[in-house]
Amino acid sequence: MVKNAVGRDIPEEIAGMKLIPFKGAFAHVPEGRKVAPKLGYVASPDKRNKVVKGIEEAIKKVGLSDGMTISFHHHFRDGDMVMNMVLEAAMKLGIKDLTLAPSSTFPCQEDTVLRAIKTGTLKYIEGGSYRGKIGQAVSSGVFDKPVRLRSHGGRVRAITSGDIHIDVAFIGAPSSDYAGNCNGLFGPHACGCIQYSVPDAHYAEKVVVVTDNLVEYPCTPIEISEQYVDVVALVDQIGDPNKIVSGTLRITKSPTRLKIARDAVKLAHITGHIYDGCSFQAGAGGISLAFTKFLGELLEKEGYVASWAMAGTTKFLVDILRKGHVKKVLTGQAFDTAAIESMQNDRNHFFAGIDHYAHVHGKGCLVNNLDVIVLGATEVDVNFNVNTVTFSNGMLSHPIGGHQDTAAGAKLTIITAPLMRGRLPIIVDEVTTVTTPGETVDAVVTEYGIAINPRRDDLMEKVKGSDLNIVDIEDLKKLAYRKAGIKEQKKPDWDDEIVALVEYRDGTIIDVVRKVKGLENPLDKIE
Amino acid sequence: MVKNAVGRDIPEEIAGMKLIPFKGAFAHVPEGRKVAPKLGYVASPDKRNKVVKGIEEAIKKVGLSDGMTISFHHHFRDGDMVMNMVLEAAMKLGIKDLTLAPSSTFPCQEDTVLRAIKTGTLKYIEGGSYRGKIGQAVSSGVFDKPVRLRSHGGRVRAITSGDIHIDVAFIGAPSSDYAGNCNGLFGPHACGCIQYSVPDAHYAEKVVVVTDNLVEYPCTPIEISEQYVDVVALVDQIGDPNKIVSGTLRITKSPTRLKIARDAVKLAHITGHIYDGCSFQAGAGGISLAFTKFLGELLEKEGYVASWAMAGTTKFLVDILRKGHVKKVLTGQAFDTAAIESMQNDRNHFFAGIDHYAHVHGKGCLVNNLDVIVLGATEVDVNFNVNTVTFSNGMLSHPIGGHQDTAAGAKLTIITAPLMRGRLPIIVDEVTTVTTPGETVDAVVTEYGIAINPRRDDLMEKVKGSDLNIVDIEDLKKLAYRKAGIKEQKKPDWDDEIVALVEYRDGTIIDVVRKVKGLENPLDKIE
Repeated sequence: MVKNAVGRDIPEEIAGMKLIPFKGAFAHVPEGRKVAPKLGYVASPDKRNKVVKGIEEAIKKVGLSDGMTISFHHHFRDGDMVMNMVLEAAMKLGIKDLTLAPSSTFPCQEDTVLRAIKTGTLKYIEGGSYRGKIGQAVSSGVFDKPVRLRSHGGRVRAITSGDIHIDVAFIGAPSSDYAGNCNGLFGPHACGCIQYSVPDAHYAEKVVVVTDNLVEYPCTPIEISEQYVDVVALVDQIGDPNKIVSGTLRITKSPTRLKIARDAVKLAHITGHIYDGCSFQAGAGGISLAFTKFLGELLEKEGYVASWAMAGTTKFLVDILRKGHVKKVLTGQAFDTAAIESMQNDRNHFFAGIDHYAHVHGKGCLVNNLDVIVLGATEVDVNFNVNTVTFSNGMLSHPIGGHQDTAAGAKLTIITAPLMRGRLPIIVDEVTTVTTPGETVDAVVTEYGIAINPRRDDLMEKVKGSDLNIVDIEDLKKLAYRKAGIKEQKKPDWDDEIVALVEYRDGTIIDVVRKVKGLENPLDKIE
Repeated sequence: MVKNAVGRDIPEEIAGMKLIPFKGAFAHVPEGRKVAPKLGYVASPDKRNKVVKGIEEAIKKVGLSDGMTISFHHHFRDGDMVMNMVLEAAMKLGIKDLTLAPSSTFPCQEDTVLRAIKTGTLKYIEGGSYRGKIGQAVSSGVFDKPVRLRSHGGRVRAITSGDIHIDVAFIGAPSSDYAGNCNGLFGPHACGCIQYSVPDAHYAEKVVVVTDNLVEYPCTPIEISEQYVDVVALVDQIGDPNKIVSGTLRITKSPTRLKIARDAVKLAHITGHIYDGCSFQAGAGGISLAFTKFLGELLEKEGYVASWAMAGTTKFLVDILRKGHVKKVLTGQAFDTAAIESMQNDRNHFFAGIDHYAHVHGKGCLVNNLDVIVLGATEVDVNFNVNTVTFSNGMLSHPIGGHQDTAAGAKLTIITAPLMRGRLPIIVDEVTTVTTPGETVDAVVTEYGIAINPRRDDLMEKVKGSDLNIVDIEDLKKLAYRKAGIKEQKKPDWDDEIVALVEYRDGTIIDVVRKVKGLENPLDKIE
């Protein structure tokens, strides 16, 4: 065990994998080269048509077999149909010991994934998120070796460096031509873009584009080119765009959370990060949506035009673009139909390449150029470390997303969080799991005050004399504990066994997650 | 020496380079993987601004030093200013033994390139074209080892496979932001696109974007992303778009050549390759321009709408797009301001990725999906082999361009050529140099008749009963020889020394070019 730069004990090696402990947000300099994808070959132009009917044919054509790694994007989120189709087909064909390497998983896939594990078709999940019953399964110790949690940028890094080796990428594409040129922009089930699959397409041994909308050659715009595609599988439906966001995409109605969003905007403005020409990102959580709305109002009031913004995009950001208060929007993921329509029609609305968005082992990325990012948290500790991946009971719960990436890149990183969730304190002594290191977090905005990271004297200087309630994070924590009626933070009841490694975006290990004692294994309920 | 599939003698090794003789257009199956570019790293977001003033600063910043390989694109063709600026700066800084690996060279660069060779700053030229005085210098034997001629697709192949290793790519960009996101589409010196540099950007050790138009971040559309860019060099002017085409871009006025163009259209139509939904490419030579014009007229007359076309694009193709007789245009190189403006304004006008265009070692490319391609030739022989790279005296003269790529990919490949140029026969027994193998050429259209490749019985069947003058290629040759007053083809007066290797698009060697005896070395005239 080695103590890493956020004080967590990291094994030097586990299950045959050598680990590099986290050294600090900007300290790890990568060595060596990217991994080299295979040279392709098309025998002759006669082979230009790559279409087959259905998933099974595609699986046979690319030679998917025991022990391989398969990947998927999550642009349809809870409306995805491709992963289930492929897993069902693999089970039917009796393929065993696959590794699943998706960019994320969602509730609609849980039952199929668990069944595939139970039947031996899946033996491991590599990267992506570990939510819901899948998180519970991992936390109860179903796998022989620990899984790895990675940020969006971290997954690109892992693929380009060879840490994730994909044998077959299955890419749900709302439009494709017979040769595999495809995009997420148009079609009866358009999802905006399919960027999460771009690294998969570039590095996988074999690529299957799965589409329900075969269009005339060449399918444009070309988001993924035929150069990378082996087979085009035609199916009835790849996903339901209406289920991209599970539940309703709605601004929080809680006065507490609205206050947090307003204070976050105020903080960013007072400290000089909202100005004519600024850039920002905010996500699709309740507080983030409110932040985007209030930010739009501020831009309007001040007559500012932001230079650009990016996001998991929603109608709130589209509104700002339509009103002319941001010049350009770059979307990595469309969260609602307003976003999809805007991408289709507005020439100032672009998709953001997922590698361009956050790949840390390139020579620069979009997140590095952000003025402001607003992010949520499951827990924040007095060292400003943030947890997004485990509940306080230690069970895997949520993904990292772009949290680490944007926090490291933006000039001002604001974490918004209520002081409590139910009876649980959110500001704690030590986060259960470190996802994002405190050195990349500048301020925590709660309904009981704003804590500024002591590393940022400059911000402290700027808020002086404002009506913002600036507090010490220790005091926030104490208040939270008092309200919770506890003296000490309750630690998870963890076994020794490490079930998950939390990678920092640069591939080093920032924390580990252990098996939760006495946790029910959801596989036991699968027939 | 080994005889290759077009009967040329190829050494198995030369100057330490192992050679693979050409095996047939679709016979060589590549093994192994692409080369792996270096992992990038940005120390922290503070480093986001990459701008330096001028070329010298950029050269110092990326550490350009003796023996390295530098690359350039040729989108400005004879109006390019970047290559000369860099060579001048390198000479001034006393850097020696550089290898020049441009996508092409033009007359405006000849003097500087020759001076750089003479002063020892340049020691070799890798790929690109060998025109004019540069061709003459190579043909007179200035280099220690033979140069290599490659097609557009072949250059991408060579870079991605590691055959060309670029240390520093200099990329003239009509628009760039401080981080290096850039494009060729907008700016005071817009050239349409900068696609020839995309492989360079992805694979070079260091990348310098050279721009005269710094725009607000993020520069969109993003043709090359900041992920690949080390330094942005700000200069006064990168090129003159008015000189993209040397001389005037004008349709041939020669009745002979107009007839050739008309017959080529007729042949493509009669054989079923021009239809509602067809695809085509034609270049910017005099006959090709006329072909495009006549093709447009045919589409109009028949009420056809072609599905797509690509080209080194000119106003003639833009006209067809505007009139709605082609749905989409994909441009790899803009040849006039009409093309540039159309790319800027028409949502159905896209740029064609140079890798997507013609990279043979991917899983498919645009050229494979063409119905018709019309190409020129310096010579064609009775086996339908085409020479584009040497004069009949054996001196290097012209580049390959997309000749090999499109000929191999298209369903119908038509070579248009006058029977004679001056007193020289163009249809000969054996081309001086094989650029494009006869097996990928379907027909040769001359003013004295159309020769169809005997491999294409199907075409022969289709032209039966038409008013096209179908002749045997042997008869064309005989006629040419008679008109030239010769009995036998005059062969070049070549030395034994091999000065150039002609690569086929797959990296095998299709022919060699030898030193021309008694040729004046243009370096002798450089002070």
